[in-house]
Amino acid sequence: MGTALAQPLADRGHEVRLVGTHLDRELVGGMRATRVHAKLQTRISERVQLFDDHELPQALTGADVVALGVSSAGIDWATGVLAPLYDRPRPLFMITKGLWLEDGALRTLPDVVAARLPAAVRAEVHPAAIAGPCIAGELARGATTCVVLAGRDDAQNRMLADLLRGPYYHVLPTTDVIGAEVCAALKNAFAMGIAFAEGLHRRRQSSTPAGGEAGDSPSNNREIGSLAMHNLESALLAQATLEMRHLCRALGSPGELAVGLAGVGDLDVTTNGGRTGKFGRLLGEGLSVAQAKDRMAGATLECLEILRVVDAAFAAGPGGASAFGGVPREDCPFLAHLCDVALRDAPVALPLDRFFDPRISGA
Amino acid sequence: MGTALAQPLADRGHEVRLVGTHLDRELVGGMRATRVHAKLQTRISERVQLFDDHELPQALTGADVVALGVSSAGIDWATGVLAPLYDRPRPLFMITKGLWLEDGALRTLPDVVAARLPAAVRAEVHPAAIAGPCIAGELARGATTCVVLAGRDDAQNRMLADLLRGPYYHVLPTTDVIGAEVCAALKNAFAMGIAFAEGLHRRRQSSTPAGGEAGDSPSNNREIGSLAMHNLESALLAQATLEMRHLCRALGSPGELAVGLAGVGDLDVTTNGGRTGKFGRLLGEGLSVAQAKDRMAGATLECLEILRVVDAAFAAGPGGASAFGGVPREDCPFLAHLCDVALRDAPVALPLDRFFDPRISGA
Repeated sequence: MGTALAQPLADRGHEVRLVGTHLDRELVGGMRATRVHAKLQTRISERVQLFDDHELPQALTGADVVALGVSSAGIDWATGVLAPLYDRPRPLFMITKGLWLEDGALRTLPDVVAARLPAAVRAEVHPAAIAGPCIAGELARGATTCVVLAGRDDAQNRMLADLLRGPYYHVLPTTDVIGAEVCAALKNAFAMGIAFAEGLHRRRQSSTPAGGEAGDSPSNNREIGSLAMHNLESALLAQATLEMRHLCRALGSPGELAVGLAGVGDLDVTTNGGRTGKFGRLLGEGLSVAQAKDRMAGATLECLEILRVVDAAFAAGPGGASAFGGVPREDCPFLAHLCDVALRDAPVALPLDRFFDPRISGA
Repeated sequence: MGTALAQPLADRGHEVRLVGTHLDRELVGGMRATRVHAKLQTRISERVQLFDDHELPQALTGADVVALGVSSAGIDWATGVLAPLYDRPRPLFMITKGLWLEDGALRTLPDVVAARLPAAVRAEVHPAAIAGPCIAGELARGATTCVVLAGRDDAQNRMLADLLRGPYYHVLPTTDVIGAEVCAALKNAFAMGIAFAEGLHRRRQSSTPAGGEAGDSPSNNREIGSLAMHNLESALLAQATLEMRHLCRALGSPGELAVGLAGVGDLDVTTNGGRTGKFGRLLGEGLSVAQAKDRMAGATLECLEILRVVDAAFAAGPGGASAFGGVPREDCPFLAHLCDVALRDAPVALPLDRFFDPRISGA
């Protein structure tokens, strides 16, 4: 994703210094040799200079702005190496996303990163996060998208958005950091759950004999054609949007980003295949978490990471109350079920009768 | 869709009398002979009795509830034949959707139908409309979905929802008729627009020589792999949701259904292929409306019907103001562009810089 982000910046005329982590040395070496990113399969702009992790100090020398693109698991490393080099207040933004649970309170990644910057610059650097529909391979090829840039300081947000935006990269500044980060974090969990629908469909298809003579549904004996579960997928997308908004509001955000790019927008594109979707589909087919993980052959599953945080957060507040501003897990039956399935190996059985409750749907 | 709806009703234990229009005689004859719906390719429940249009009086005899499933173009015919037979107050619901512009005011279909019922029953029959993700072929096969049932009378809504809901058909009553109908009507227009993304993608691919040596975007000279426009599709889905909510609110609805099943839910499933999506893709590829219509070989394009209503509504209010509660077309740049493309053959050029305006995104 860091490489993908480098492209609109380069096309905007910026000189970009792309620094790999210690895990990226082979990738960076390959890009140096071929100017092609091995995974994205895109050519790197001439305006992008490549650096290995140990070259970070040179890369930062004279840099006007810092962008962070490590995975959420790499935040400790990244802040650890960056902080000592932060000798002056340079604006910082990140495409890394996440919610952290610290001392019974949920914190967004921009706030976590801000707290780790040297005290001398902290008052002037207001880290911002980018959220919205952004498949790396598309951005790297100059395919159009729109995203939000969320930081605590309106002026710094606007400055960064102006630096970033270009003809195919539309960047909208917002100060709703909580809304952007809650949506960005939860979308992986919900994308897993939306993919249950395809898994349930496959399970049902394989349990229905050709000709449709038997099955577990009253209608299966009528089934003579093909079937998908697109209706259910779309209903789940709607419920996910409502639960995201509910939790944003519980944490003090207006919740409006859930209805926009960071919420429904990013969620929709995330359900479009990928690791998370495959994992959710396998669970929907009836595999246990361990079996599904096996099939994923060691892929990082961000949905499990965020569900662990969410599950703990529901009981981490004062007196065992919810760290989501007191909102109990019962308010979010989809998310609660995802925790049960992913963390306690409950069978997939979507509690649809409790979905679209007026408390969260407002209708 | 009427046949599809008959299935959950039959599975719920109801005796269903399915009446075709004069256009459906062949279809009904085929179903009588084979018990299979020729287009849906599903077997019809034994609890469904079949009637031709001229048998409507017999079908209605002793019926407790009336369901209307004609296309919006068939509403005049349907209300014309139904009204004289409405000899007592029977609850009525419809899966037909639409907005009507009458005397400079937008009216929902339930209200239009209510006004056409005999005066003697009008006070006791409160027509309701069903909205939400509901591909007919899936419902007919007993695949799960969730929908809203929107009528002016809460008690009648609840009674109807109780009659309809079953293990795979989740029905949520609501009195927000305007919200349900505005979303149900506009989703076809927006689905056309979301499909522009795939058309633009195809146009770009075909204009980029193998090896990616040229193109219309600054990044095309780096393009060596495949590309999709899923980011843009998802951004458009988000903007569509926001514009739907904005127009719902302008007409006095809380707008909450736009964030739920009738809005984002139905819109998401509608973009999943189908006639509307194909038509929008062709326009995105650069075809004129006439050329795209030619390729559609006479298929009904509900998106064009609703865009004609929307376009007229923006200038149909008092003194040429908008019949959407005064909200000008500038507030909805996506929908306004769809009108320009579909009705005035403007080239597809999404005004993304005007999308996600705080006035409608609230963020």
